[in-house]
Amino acid sequence: MVKIAIMGYGVVGSGVVEVMLKNKKSISHKAGEQIEISRILDIREFSDSPMAGRFTSNFEDIINDPEIKIVVETIGGLNPAYDFVRRCLLAGKSVVTSNKELVAAKGDELLALARDRNLNFLFEASVGGGIPILRPLDQCLAANEVFEIAGILNGTTNFILTKMIRDNISFADALNLAQRLGYAERDPLADIGGLDACRKICILASLAFGKHVYPEQVHTQGIQDITLEDVKYADIWGGVIKLIGRARKLEDGRLDCIVVPMILPHASRLAQVNDVFNGILVRGDAIGDVVFYGQGAGKLPTASAVVADIIDEVKHLGARKYLIWESGEPDYVADYLESKSAMMLRLKCDNSQAVKSKLDNMLGVCERVDIENSPSDELVLVTPLITQNRLDEVLKSLSDTSLISRIRIADF
Amino acid sequence: MVKIAIMGYGVVGSGVVEVMLKNKKSISHKAGEQIEISRILDIREFSDSPMAGRFTSNFEDIINDPEIKIVVETIGGLNPAYDFVRRCLLAGKSVVTSNKELVAAKGDELLALARDRNLNFLFEASVGGGIPILRPLDQCLAANEVFEIAGILNGTTNFILTKMIRDNISFADALNLAQRLGYAERDPLADIGGLDACRKICILASLAFGKHVYPEQVHTQGIQDITLEDVKYADIWGGVIKLIGRARKLEDGRLDCIVVPMILPHASRLAQVNDVFNGILVRGDAIGDVVFYGQGAGKLPTASAVVADIIDEVKHLGARKYLIWESGEPDYVADYLESKSAMMLRLKCDNSQAVKSKLDNMLGVCERVDIENSPSDELVLVTPLITQNRLDEVLKSLSDTSLISRIRIADF
Repeated sequence: MVKIAIMGYGVVGSGVVEVMLKNKKSISHKAGEQIEISRILDIREFSDSPMAGRFTSNFEDIINDPEIKIVVETIGGLNPAYDFVRRCLLAGKSVVTSNKELVAAKGDELLALARDRNLNFLFEASVGGGIPILRPLDQCLAANEVFEIAGILNGTTNFILTKMIRDNISFADALNLAQRLGYAERDPLADIGGLDACRKICILASLAFGKHVYPEQVHTQGIQDITLEDVKYADIWGGVIKLIGRARKLEDGRLDCIVVPMILPHASRLAQVNDVFNGILVRGDAIGDVVFYGQGAGKLPTASAVVADIIDEVKHLGARKYLIWESGEPDYVADYLESKSAMMLRLKCDNSQAVKSKLDNMLGVCERVDIENSPSDELVLVTPLITQNRLDEVLKSLSDTSLISRIRIADF
Repeated sequence: MVKIAIMGYGVVGSGVVEVMLKNKKSISHKAGEQIEISRILDIREFSDSPMAGRFTSNFEDIINDPEIKIVVETIGGLNPAYDFVRRCLLAGKSVVTSNKELVAAKGDELLALARDRNLNFLFEASVGGGIPILRPLDQCLAANEVFEIAGILNGTTNFILTKMIRDNISFADALNLAQRLGYAERDPLADIGGLDACRKICILASLAFGKHVYPEQVHTQGIQDITLEDVKYADIWGGVIKLIGRARKLEDGRLDCIVVPMILPHASRLAQVNDVFNGILVRGDAIGDVVFYGQGAGKLPTASAVVADIIDEVKHLGARKYLIWESGEPDYVADYLESKSAMMLRLKCDNSQAVKSKLDNMLGVCERVDIENSPSDELVLVTPLITQNRLDEVLKSLSDTSLISRIRIADF
């Protein structure tokens, strides 16, 4: 019998209890031990819960109970989760968390704490919800040089973009719908501004490339400025706009890591990932392209990933799972303005033919995207591979031209 | 330093050596030990190989070397692989194999042998080539009741069907092309007849549902009889024909397990898996639908899965990975004739309106699929859910009607 505690009885925490109770028999069988949830930390009381009597609002009840070997952190946010998790590890308890903000900010430190004490710190649920991704990535890494990871990592923004693309609904209306359906928070900024996706690509990149990438190192742009016109031009060119988190190893050892809306050609494996679903592409030298797809959020999918980690920790009490990465470095992530990609440009200009000729000369031949009934002073082009620095420099030299939008085109 | 041996230096075996040499440093780092390939069993001599000097044609050189702790079987086929693997386990050596025929036929017995001797028997590469699927499935199983697995499990047939669908090439020509490109064997029967897919769904079903499913228990139908007309009707209805291996838990505890061509609606996640790629859908109660996608065969992808297993066995020498299932039972797999699905029927009949009315009465209202310039004596219908037994009985009662083809429609 192994005793565990759960900190935070919100959506994920209560889902963990639900899954543990529902699949109790098969879970004990898998773990090789009975697992008892002996304490649940929450400020609220849940007297109707089957767990009533095990709730506490005092963290000390958990940290001071030597029988509790594993603590599950589903509070979310950096504080007090960081302090609690740290203290649990220092007290010799293994930890499972679903908290991407915590892992993206403090993963290196917490993994080192766990390693030094022969404990485990697992967080499968922090990326991709219920999609098994961190363990399979670890498996891919075992025999492959993984050189790129790209993913649709946030279900809320993917739902909004899918509505814009399929139903021709504006960003504002699609966001409103997402909120009514419960897919977006009342304060949706972490989702639509790209921060949630940023935290997840930080975790994936840290694991894949062995060195911590911190969210503040990653250029992060959300989908707030994507318009129906952008969507339409992308469609005419032959693609869809998706919010992509991408990390790619550069030849000099640094990382190209960004979160931006990108246009994915229809043939891309990630172009067909729609609605609230997530999809993650892993590219390795031996394995080629592998894609993982499923629900990236939601109570039960996320809870099932947490429970899989709990089982793994029960099986490895006193032994360590291999999972570690180094602390990061200030210059590890390259300047995104120097990262090359093809771009779709929407320009406002009077003489579009002349502007196109100039750009063709300066950038290499651009592909013109024509749309019926478009404004006569609008020019839409797809450039060859170029850095944003160089592009902005060239555009600045064209005095009679202003930039409406600039969206990267994915090469996966 | 851990010594291993490789049996069989064909495509996969030589790929394993290639990956081990290329990523030597990161592999040792992951495994926590240096790994030395001390022996390679093959009847041929490879004097130009960097491994020259380590080849032997005598299995006794491996079985009698107490320093060899792990043996990799990449010979393929049931004999002598079965005898060799069995003897390795009996001699206290852990085994990794890529051999789906072996695992599908003898997995229960070999897993039990390994368990009883505290050894590991791993076979990630036997299903889905380089796609990590067995470990993630194990993870899905940890916290989920998995109730269905369906997959495009054979790249050769998927390539042929993709050519038929996209390029309107006949089955015979597409097969010919696949052979010229090296995607199909000169004797392609195991692929096109569905046996390869059958072995893989047996392995997936055995792991997912805990009891061995033997290939001879699974109704297996290949793609030889699929015509361009079938492909066209499927397209007009709104789907594509794919060879599907599917296992589904029935309420009485038995399994519905088949390998058949099915029509997948365009919206199905597996409908977009094309060319030589594989896709595997796992459905669980908490996790919802999860899909794994990648190259299901090929030298390096398969080799990378083998190497991941080798690393795992090196890390777990003297400890066991949880991976086991019971032996099967004669009545465990239900009669496929009693498995219900919607079906697309192509019928030859003189009075199609009258025949449709009769069928609507007997089966429930059928959907008519109309195609321009189709023969006037051909009727194409999509039925409601029905068993093949009941359908055949009903068709037999229509004396003026003969069946051209009958293809199941997928509900995923």
